[in-house]
Amino acid sequence: MTGSPIRWGILSTGRIAGVFAEALQSLDDARLVAVGSRSADAAAAFGDRFNVPRRYASYEELAADPEVDIVYIATPHALHAENCLLCLHYGKAVLCEKPFTINARQAAEVIAVARERGMFLMEAMWTRFLPAIARLRELLAANAIGEVRMIASDFGFRSSVDPRSRLFDPALGGGSLLDVGVYPVSLTSMIFGGEPERIATLAHLGATGVDEEAAMILGYSSGRMAMLWSAIRTETPHETTIMGTDGMIRVHPQWWRARTLTLIRGGRADEVIEAPYSGNGYQYEAIEAMRCLRAGMTESPVMPLDETLGIMRTLDAIRAQWGLTYPME
Amino acid sequence: MTGSPIRWGILSTGRIAGVFAEALQSLDDARLVAVGSRSADAAAAFGDRFNVPRRYASYEELAADPEVDIVYIATPHALHAENCLLCLHYGKAVLCEKPFTINARQAAEVIAVARERGMFLMEAMWTRFLPAIARLRELLAANAIGEVRMIASDFGFRSSVDPRSRLFDPALGGGSLLDVGVYPVSLTSMIFGGEPERIATLAHLGATGVDEEAAMILGYSSGRMAMLWSAIRTETPHETTIMGTDGMIRVHPQWWRARTLTLIRGGRADEVIEAPYSGNGYQYEAIEAMRCLRAGMTESPVMPLDETLGIMRTLDAIRAQWGLTYPME
Repeated sequence: MTGSPIRWGILSTGRIAGVFAEALQSLDDARLVAVGSRSADAAAAFGDRFNVPRRYASYEELAADPEVDIVYIATPHALHAENCLLCLHYGKAVLCEKPFTINARQAAEVIAVARERGMFLMEAMWTRFLPAIARLRELLAANAIGEVRMIASDFGFRSSVDPRSRLFDPALGGGSLLDVGVYPVSLTSMIFGGEPERIATLAHLGATGVDEEAAMILGYSSGRMAMLWSAIRTETPHETTIMGTDGMIRVHPQWWRARTLTLIRGGRADEVIEAPYSGNGYQYEAIEAMRCLRAGMTESPVMPLDETLGIMRTLDAIRAQWGLTYPME
Repeated sequence: MTGSPIRWGILSTGRIAGVFAEALQSLDDARLVAVGSRSADAAAAFGDRFNVPRRYASYEELAADPEVDIVYIATPHALHAENCLLCLHYGKAVLCEKPFTINARQAAEVIAVARERGMFLMEAMWTRFLPAIARLRELLAANAIGEVRMIASDFGFRSSVDPRSRLFDPALGGGSLLDVGVYPVSLTSMIFGGEPERIATLAHLGATGVDEEAAMILGYSSGRMAMLWSAIRTETPHETTIMGTDGMIRVHPQWWRARTLTLIRGGRADEVIEAPYSGNGYQYEAIEAMRCLRAGMTESPVMPLDETLGIMRTLDAIRAQWGLTYPME
């Protein structure tokens, strides 16, 4: 596909679909050629808004379109597995929003199909591809704070309880963990390298049965630990601190759309590192997906599928300690 | 005792004994009249340094001195119970350093004796008496951030492993939890009111068997939670964030010697509240102890004994999850 633009389809027309469409428009080598919705009106409105030539009133028509190279899946997470499988069935590469699926069983199934068919598949954990987080990886790789021993990271906001909202509906995988807790869990996975050996966690399950506030300690080899918390009923600092044997790195609020890091080392002045993103920041994951496609790769080394699966297993293990299962499980 | 100065004795001549002696010197209505040590030389040196008239080469002579109203116990925590019991036996009021004892069993014994004898007894959790923490209590009581839902608090520093140091010696109740973890646990107890209903915790026990890093989630009624961590091998931010339904309060580093709070509420400018302490800050707990003595009270409502006992039970429950017991238990 080298040379010609990558042709994107977007599955769903919700808020995040619009954010991603906007990001694609900033890329010369990307072309948003199709959108699929369950509603013809929504597809038409989205098509008009983002100048998308082909609008489909079903996800299947989008997936079947031979002019589409890769589909970005922007539905609520309860639908991700089904939507991914549909696109993979039609031979489409897939970039799927986070959380990747509802649970590890679904994730394993989707990953197995992509690998069988040799199709590119990646979790759209956009934060990981931001320049500031790339800079963070470089600093850690360069041993800037020695051995990382502890991580503290949070992502929580306060919304009103609305049983009809996706956030509060168990049937849609509601709750803080899958919606925002996945960010600190994924960051920890990136830094400590995979799945924890031990987990200690508590959550507050609200009236609708989902976790309105959650806290988890993830324990890794050599006693390394991460203290993470998430909420949909409480505003939190949105901060990450990485504590090593030779110093700390703080990723400033709101860390999940990181722009600034501070490197803190004993006996030296704090070093503020500005690493802003351009646009809305969602183009970096698209750039990575297109880089992989052009290179003929089926996975990104920045967000590998085994790691995505490990993150889903971690989320499952956390929920298991709370006794939280979703109706579709 | 109204009118005349309160006459203090200090038991032990270590670093914290000197800090407290210095704090007493700033108070007009306090008189440091005696010091007790296991060594005559140390007692003499301390006496010279702080102008203390009576110097004893044993703790018992200090406890028996009829001219002493109240003894400040500044030994390592493994000795607190024994030292408290000695002073109470001789009818002395006692202000005992934190952690109050090694475990709840010891704490209960000391508290029972004080109550039987009708003597004043208080845990010297100095942070709680600082102006900034008093201001924090006022803000929370005035509902400044609504209902508190989550607390994040840490206290950790990096020291070298030294098996001969108190910090790393299980026989002296070493490890991060009892040395510094007690601060966030006590703060949580103050804010949420007593003992947690549930605890989830992990720790890294190092080569000497003590917790070099610890993380704990304390769960309270209505799903309120605190995420706390402590360390003696890793520098942490030394920050506290209190998250409520209507905003957040951040107690700035180093929060355990708090000077500044920031009140953060949606739609309003952040409000920075300066509440510095004078001197080294240790005089506030002495002022409270003397206020209680003058009022004929045997406990302080700011740091009640039942709460001190609850904190020790919480520390016990945390350690139980790690399987950490000290040799003297």
